[in-house]
Amino acid sequence: MRSEFQFIENLKSKYSLDKIGDDCAILPKDARTDLLLTADLLVEDIDFRLEWTTPELIGAKALAVSLSDIAAMGGEPKWAMLSIGIPEYEWDGEFVDRFYEGWFTLARHHHVELVGGDVSRTPQKIVIDSIVGGEIRKGKAILRSGAKVGDHIFVTGQLGGAAGGLMLLEAGFHYSGSNRKRQELITRQLRPTPQLTIGKYLSLHNLASSMIDLSDGLSSDLTHLCCASIVGARIEADKLPIHPNLSEIPNPPTALDSGEDFELLFTVPPSKISKITSLHATYIGEITSKQGIVEVIDTDGNIWTIPAGGYWHF
Amino acid sequence: MRSEFQFIENLKSKYSLDKIGDDCAILPKDARTDLLLTADLLVEDIDFRLEWTTPELIGAKALAVSLSDIAAMGGEPKWAMLSIGIPEYEWDGEFVDRFYEGWFTLARHHHVELVGGDVSRTPQKIVIDSIVGGEIRKGKAILRSGAKVGDHIFVTGQLGGAAGGLMLLEAGFHYSGSNRKRQELITRQLRPTPQLTIGKYLSLHNLASSMIDLSDGLSSDLTHLCCASIVGARIEADKLPIHPNLSEIPNPPTALDSGEDFELLFTVPPSKISKITSLHATYIGEITSKQGIVEVIDTDGNIWTIPAGGYWHF
Repeated sequence: MRSEFQFIENLKSKYSLDKIGDDCAILPKDARTDLLLTADLLVEDIDFRLEWTTPELIGAKALAVSLSDIAAMGGEPKWAMLSIGIPEYEWDGEFVDRFYEGWFTLARHHHVELVGGDVSRTPQKIVIDSIVGGEIRKGKAILRSGAKVGDHIFVTGQLGGAAGGLMLLEAGFHYSGSNRKRQELITRQLRPTPQLTIGKYLSLHNLASSMIDLSDGLSSDLTHLCCASIVGARIEADKLPIHPNLSEIPNPPTALDSGEDFELLFTVPPSKISKITSLHATYIGEITSKQGIVEVIDTDGNIWTIPAGGYWHF
Repeated sequence: MRSEFQFIENLKSKYSLDKIGDDCAILPKDARTDLLLTADLLVEDIDFRLEWTTPELIGAKALAVSLSDIAAMGGEPKWAMLSIGIPEYEWDGEFVDRFYEGWFTLARHHHVELVGGDVSRTPQKIVIDSIVGGEIRKGKAILRSGAKVGDHIFVTGQLGGAAGGLMLLEAGFHYSGSNRKRQELITRQLRPTPQLTIGKYLSLHNLASSMIDLSDGLSSDLTHLCCASIVGARIEADKLPIHPNLSEIPNPPTALDSGEDFELLFTVPPSKISKITSLHATYIGEITSKQGIVEVIDTDGNIWTIPAGGYWHF
């Protein structure tokens, strides 16, 4: 079965689509500004389960995943459109109102204005398409394709928490009734935090040569970045900032294959390393010349070439 | 049950959304240009049925309905995003490729570039969110809210054809095997034509005081226009350009309540009437001062106040 990535690659080449393939499309806005555009489709029982979360959290997550795409370019979100398809039995209940309440709470926090969208009925299951428009100084968007050999690789925050939370939910744990550490993991899954401040800082000060957000998982997303930049990467296993609460899970997900952390993965030229020490970001490795190849050095110094497994949505 | 319109009105007032309520949102782009944005959600078995149409026609219609929103502002489409959710069993079949082929054929015709979107799996049923961005000279977008008492009301093309086509499909007719007149009606339903040229002409020459596209049906859409403009309308039943092929249907839909024609409904100040004689548009009545009230004069001169029935998607 072809993957979502193969499908999009085919589409890009068949129809010569040069705006597709980064976290956002970049379009010229005016003399000083570029427009950033992103869309994320969330489907009930594929991307979320009603019994695991609340309508407010679904609303906030629908927006957060798109804001994370804006963050991954170094941009600032400005407006949004929201299309929602709802089964008839949810229409008169409280789902929709609570969903929008969650969406607007996050939108207000980031000064994002709802400017459009659509509302429709579905035969079954809720479907949400979240579209966000952002802005960035002309030519300053941080692409996936700018990494150079020798650049240092960093990630913000901690890895694996969201996948750990998903494991707990799948195992039947709920937020209420779980201990504090498990609640934190479940929160990482249900309420991702877009890293807009760090993304914007990196762009404003020209610090990152490339960037992507961690939605599919480190190995997958780092491979995307390497392929776009026509480079490779070597990361150090013991440097990975693994979420400490994963100790709560007997057989935790690996930091390499854990999706949905919505942290930022970025590269910094050696000359600029000193300028990012104030950021909450962890050095995890270096860019190499082995095109499209991601390697991991384990604690014994062995080097493993890892497949671009990651967390595949499709 | 609350309607889609009530829901959106509530949302607008609750969250003070002033960009929502016309065919497109209007955002400033640069010193000379405004950006137009529209989104349309199409759901299998609600908005289309696979057994009635082809993947190519679904692709083209998904784009056409959004292009019609751009036309209704007088704008020019520029770029699009397309989010599609597909059940696993459709993923490896030919549906997706043929869908995109239909989409791109229409997109190329209108010089619309695909810049983004998302692809996801759904548990069942195909879901499409079509987003189009357009441009218009600053301040020149034709709103629903500009109609003045005494303005003449026009529609492009013919009315009721798409609803007639839907009736035929629902009655078990197919395109192949139908006579030419019925095929034309079915084509009106399955392959709408966005009226971009007329929309743009009206904007370029400052001819229309207000405009909306006919998606829900004349009575509904004219009521929306009247409510937005805080005026009323009186239309003449014998002036309505009813699709001639509706004679093929024993109990045809009325031109007032027929949705999905995607023609343009617009108003013109009396001083400018002479300038639109070259357009394929028909005079159907006049704007009155009876706020939100749409009246119809029948052939005997009786005046009927019509409810805003139209064709409700929700």
